[in-house]
Amino acid sequence: MAAHNPKWLTLSSALAVAIIFASTVYFWRRKSRGGKDARIQELEDSLMNALEKCAAERQGRIKAQQALRKALVQQNSESCDSNSYPMAPIAVIQSCFSTRNGTPRQPLLVPLARACLKFDSARVPPASLEGLEGYSHCWILYVFHLNTDLEKLWKHPSQSKFKAKVRVPRLKGERMGVFATRSPHRPCPIGLTVAKVESVQGQTVLLSGVDLVDGTPVLDVKPYLPYCDSIGEATVPEWVKADNLLAVASVNFSQGFSDGLANCWPIVEKRSLYTSQHEFQGLIKQVLSWDIRSVSQRSQPHNSIIKSGLKNHDGDEISGNGSEEVSTSSDNVVYHLILEGLDVSYRIDCNSNVVVEKVSRLSQNQIANKINSNT
Amino acid sequence: MAAHNPKWLTLSSALAVAIIFASTVYFWRRKSRGGKDARIQELEDSLMNALEKCAAERQGRIKAQQALRKALVQQNSESCDSNSYPMAPIAVIQSCFSTRNGTPRQPLLVPLARACLKFDSARVPPASLEGLEGYSHCWILYVFHLNTDLEKLWKHPSQSKFKAKVRVPRLKGERMGVFATRSPHRPCPIGLTVAKVESVQGQTVLLSGVDLVDGTPVLDVKPYLPYCDSIGEATVPEWVKADNLLAVASVNFSQGFSDGLANCWPIVEKRSLYTSQHEFQGLIKQVLSWDIRSVSQRSQPHNSIIKSGLKNHDGDEISGNGSEEVSTSSDNVVYHLILEGLDVSYRIDCNSNVVVEKVSRLSQNQIANKINSNT
Repeated sequence: MAAHNPKWLTLSSALAVAIIFASTVYFWRRKSRGGKDARIQELEDSLMNALEKCAAERQGRIKAQQALRKALVQQNSESCDSNSYPMAPIAVIQSCFSTRNGTPRQPLLVPLARACLKFDSARVPPASLEGLEGYSHCWILYVFHLNTDLEKLWKHPSQSKFKAKVRVPRLKGERMGVFATRSPHRPCPIGLTVAKVESVQGQTVLLSGVDLVDGTPVLDVKPYLPYCDSIGEATVPEWVKADNLLAVASVNFSQGFSDGLANCWPIVEKRSLYTSQHEFQGLIKQVLSWDIRSVSQRSQPHNSIIKSGLKNHDGDEISGNGSEEVSTSSDNVVYHLILEGLDVSYRIDCNSNVVVEKVSRLSQNQIANKINSNT
Repeated sequence: MAAHNPKWLTLSSALAVAIIFASTVYFWRRKSRGGKDARIQELEDSLMNALEKCAAERQGRIKAQQALRKALVQQNSESCDSNSYPMAPIAVIQSCFSTRNGTPRQPLLVPLARACLKFDSARVPPASLEGLEGYSHCWILYVFHLNTDLEKLWKHPSQSKFKAKVRVPRLKGERMGVFATRSPHRPCPIGLTVAKVESVQGQTVLLSGVDLVDGTPVLDVKPYLPYCDSIGEATVPEWVKADNLLAVASVNFSQGFSDGLANCWPIVEKRSLYTSQHEFQGLIKQVLSWDIRSVSQRSQPHNSIIKSGLKNHDGDEISGNGSEEVSTSSDNVVYHLILEGLDVSYRIDCNSNVVVEKVSRLSQNQIANKINSNT
């Protein structure tokens, strides 16, 4: 009888409706909820990646900016600052004087002292030399490139020091203000010398009477204008008048010398500034006809570690020039002079008679050592 | 009676239950669904921000790295590289010549042309000048600081170009190789001039006969050594012999001049290189006794925008020197010359008789403009 109770039937059917309705709602939601979660996951991953990438870029930016600041500070604190002008050499000297030893103490003292001024083809077009050959002489403004403090000067100009006073051989080693001398050890290590213009060929100028060492970097070349540059009436202090150029009594060559030179000559001939072995011998004679030894070498010829003399300026003992003394035997000291890479050895007696003994070839290393040994 | 039908009652109550259940489910979902959307929105916003920030950082990193590369390349290719020596001035010239206009074309041409060489006390101890006073003359190696291309040369020496040939007034504007002239426009803009040494006081050297403009940076000072530097027999090409120094017929001062100078003098007196108004007037006379106008100014005196002449060297028209022409009235052109900051105006007639008309004071700005107007 209960099975047929109409109340119960209606109730259950109503419940069914409700459940169907509810679950429809539920499953519909469930589906859409799954889509949202995936989207969130996806967004969270992208965000994570983006933030990591951002941090990396930031690190990179900071590092680059720090390096940039450092580079700029360096640039300013050094040669690029407004207090300093960068002077790039326009040419290099190819001189007969391989080392400072024996390089004349004045220009035009050794007429056969030759040099080639080789211009930097990248910077100096041949046209810029047009007309130079018309002058008998020119000024050479160059860098004292063998100064040992140059590297420091060039890297840290502000820090590099110079001696306010330099020893002056003419004053028996007494000191003088650097600007009263032609010492190479100056705040701006620029040298000034005059030379005879022999010829101009393309980007090469042949000079004579030079007092420049091989490899000297040249900053500028100017024509010599007698009406501006030649001041005959110019006067100098007493101590400068004292002539420190001693002419020797005689220069002679030993028996074996010519044979020795004949052996070496073919090797140096093709890059030599001299047309013949004979002309080269003439150079040796001219260079040695002045006593190129320093004051101290003259006074104490048996000290074998002398490093003193003058280079290409007046009144300075620092730079090291004058004949280099190598072997010593109490009474006859053998001096050496390097010309065009050839080692010329000679003796000089107490009456200042020079005897050139022999000539031999030096390796590039040996020459380099000799250059460094007196810088 | 229908109101009391129990079947109807059960059904309605069942429906109510179903609806309540369904709506509960619905509202519960609704709530959580709102949370997810917000989260998604939030994530999307964060991601957007992160990506924007990342792009910005990337831009910054790239910019910094480019600047760094540039700075490093500059450092290597320029003044800091081994091909270039940084030359820092040791002194500055305080000259009577405020502008290039009127600065003599040669040293020692105007005996009253005075300058103070003021050394950088930080770099040059007074002791370094000891002995300089003993010489009658000295060389001044200086920088052509008014060259317009100097900034570029200094910042980018490798890129800065120079003219291989320069116009030579003596050749009526024909060109010559720069190394056959004393043109300031040279690869290394170093000038060379000689001056008379009047006195040395501490870190200041008083010079006379200068051809240097006020503010010139000095790289080096060397004693003049006649036995090295004076070459009387030196020869120059024909075109250089042609004298371009024209002495004027006469120099006279107008009635009002002295009164005008008397008014200005007290203002300049204390920093003047001259001891009296009278001595300063002597300078004006000496400067104007040479026709300081450029070739083009002489040939066409009515052109009011001439900017040409020579400065402190031989054979170059580029640099701009010679009297500056300001106002023009067909037959009598008024020229101006700036000495110690005073504006001296004068006329010159066709027979080259000079009449100095008046003198007036210029402001620093006016002087600066005049300096720039002829660089």
